[in-house]
Amino acid sequence: MSYAFRVEHVCSRSGARLGRLDTAHGSVPTPTFMPVGTQGAIKGGVLPRDLREMGAGMVLGNTYHLLLRPGPERIAAAGGLQRFTGWKGPMLTDSGGFQVFSLGHQAKITDAGVVFRSHLDGAKVRLDAEEAMRVQELFGADIMMAFDQCPPAGADRAFVESAMRRTTAWLDRCLLARRRKGEVALYGIVQGAIDAALRTRHVEEICARDGCEGFAIGGLSVGEATDVTYEICAHTARQMPADKARYLMGVGTPEDLIHCIGFGIDQFDCVLPSRNGRHGNVYTRDGGLRIKNSRFAADDGPLDPDCGCPACQTVGRSLIRHLWMAGEVAGGLWMTLHNLWFFQDLTREARAAIAEDRYDLWASATLARMASGIWRS
Amino acid sequence: MSYAFRVEHVCSRSGARLGRLDTAHGSVPTPTFMPVGTQGAIKGGVLPRDLREMGAGMVLGNTYHLLLRPGPERIAAAGGLQRFTGWKGPMLTDSGGFQVFSLGHQAKITDAGVVFRSHLDGAKVRLDAEEAMRVQELFGADIMMAFDQCPPAGADRAFVESAMRRTTAWLDRCLLARRRKGEVALYGIVQGAIDAALRTRHVEEICARDGCEGFAIGGLSVGEATDVTYEICAHTARQMPADKARYLMGVGTPEDLIHCIGFGIDQFDCVLPSRNGRHGNVYTRDGGLRIKNSRFAADDGPLDPDCGCPACQTVGRSLIRHLWMAGEVAGGLWMTLHNLWFFQDLTREARAAIAEDRYDLWASATLARMASGIWRS
Repeated sequence: MSYAFRVEHVCSRSGARLGRLDTAHGSVPTPTFMPVGTQGAIKGGVLPRDLREMGAGMVLGNTYHLLLRPGPERIAAAGGLQRFTGWKGPMLTDSGGFQVFSLGHQAKITDAGVVFRSHLDGAKVRLDAEEAMRVQELFGADIMMAFDQCPPAGADRAFVESAMRRTTAWLDRCLLARRRKGEVALYGIVQGAIDAALRTRHVEEICARDGCEGFAIGGLSVGEATDVTYEICAHTARQMPADKARYLMGVGTPEDLIHCIGFGIDQFDCVLPSRNGRHGNVYTRDGGLRIKNSRFAADDGPLDPDCGCPACQTVGRSLIRHLWMAGEVAGGLWMTLHNLWFFQDLTREARAAIAEDRYDLWASATLARMASGIWRS
Repeated sequence: MSYAFRVEHVCSRSGARLGRLDTAHGSVPTPTFMPVGTQGAIKGGVLPRDLREMGAGMVLGNTYHLLLRPGPERIAAAGGLQRFTGWKGPMLTDSGGFQVFSLGHQAKITDAGVVFRSHLDGAKVRLDAEEAMRVQELFGADIMMAFDQCPPAGADRAFVESAMRRTTAWLDRCLLARRRKGEVALYGIVQGAIDAALRTRHVEEICARDGCEGFAIGGLSVGEATDVTYEICAHTARQMPADKARYLMGVGTPEDLIHCIGFGIDQFDCVLPSRNGRHGNVYTRDGGLRIKNSRFAADDGPLDPDCGCPACQTVGRSLIRHLWMAGEVAGGLWMTLHNLWFFQDLTREARAAIAEDRYDLWASATLARMASGIWRS
């Protein structure tokens, strides 16, 4: 099957879209949340069958990590990311650029691309538009991301405009460099930081590139206030082509997903559910809870009474807290499983609400319950 | 269902026994290998459903750990170990004595019992025959172990005889102290180190106690040579009552299991499969392999081509090695799952061979293949 995206329904009471992403490795209902597979596995011990059981549609792989170790040629020789990792479903890979700056050493950026030193062994590595396409094609990604420059929070206007210019130029190079079309999608990335005018200008530039099968919003949730994230996301999304998938990169909390689905976003990814899970922070329909809180030591109830995940169906808060305090891997794994399941439930419920033209009502009720904060004390 | 054990068949070409252990939480075919649940979970992230899928019959819990944290009253309030841990099948708990000496601080032993300081917070803790029964009954174990003294390897004869005397006296106190009978079993433990005459004497003492539902061999595999382990195990097992279960504590390698099943042992437990799994040491039908060996970097085959475990059915050695080198939890988890599955396969195959009166042939062929050492170079 080739890549295809179609909007099946737009909620009549919001901008939320129900859609479907078809890929060579399966079909994914949208809006969808993509768990992050980092360097060939979800962190914390979540295995491919867990992803299948929770109904995850697509998994994200990090080009930065996989480029350095085990390398794109090795993954290609293993039959691509799906065969290598055991996750047989659809995969999206980022371009690696974002993590070059957060993890790589001595990164130097020019119009040509980025040169940095590996955080693993100090080796000098070059990454640019052409190389980003080459390695993502070797990985066998179903959706590749264009090589872009993401300005940090607080960057001045000149820096942001320079990053936009580079991102556009690099997208054109990506479009020329990519070899696999039809089966594999390439998404362009809209930058412009938190300046609405710059976002408008960059949407016009990026979304004019017909060769892109979908488009992403990058550079949000990098430190700005939440209401600014929402404002810029809504402003940008509404100008993006209605017939192509919209992916909000690296976002976010359950609240972020609920708001941004309402702005017409179709795809999300974030490390929050897995990172929070292994650090003892649990998402529930009644807001977050910290498992180390002593109130849970003798609380044998499930993490979330309304959750159908293996943790909530099998063990109580007391056991998970005990294991986590004791440093047992199973403690973090139970919570990571639950959190990822929670994010899948959230998008499942969102899709149902869109289909029934009641997304705004569902969103308000879900946000209100999460904000009740019964676990805050 | 009450505790019951029956031998269903004895291999006509060896001493290997096919049997069945009935407990209130399910029925277990023997010989059986019990994964170690340590402090409420298998180490490395193996969850209860994994144990069910691999066909584990009974799980062992460590009284030392669970006594200190979260404590027997907490576990009883949660509904017992099964409800607390989510493993709904049969459980055996040790008496805690063995780990007091390996993990506790400043342990002092007298005829009365043991006083030690917790390795967690230095708190002074007392453990004796009566307390060992009380806490194991609070845990809700299906099989409780008598409180015993296990002499270290190389202990002199006077020390070994003193430990035997105490172990016998403590068993009598356990038999008086236990409250739950019928539903819950109590196993006495035979000591005597590596002295055949002392083992004979202690079997006569311990196995004369009619109140015990089963008997264990303790104090082996603590550092002595393997041929001595086998000699003493065979010598001891053949003098134990034929109609009661025989449990060889803390043993062992796949080779140990194969030999000792031939001596008529019905139950085993050991941390080896889980500990080795998370340290990158993998059991296969062709002997052990170390995943860090660079030969596996580009080897996309399964850990063991003849294995049906989730790891071998899903991913290759190259992915597991990559994850393990990268420090990802999933790497150790895949190997721990495989190793535990391997031990369950081993006892499954052993039971089939006993049923068909060909245990000796199966044992020889299996040992020969394991010893071929194709992974040693």
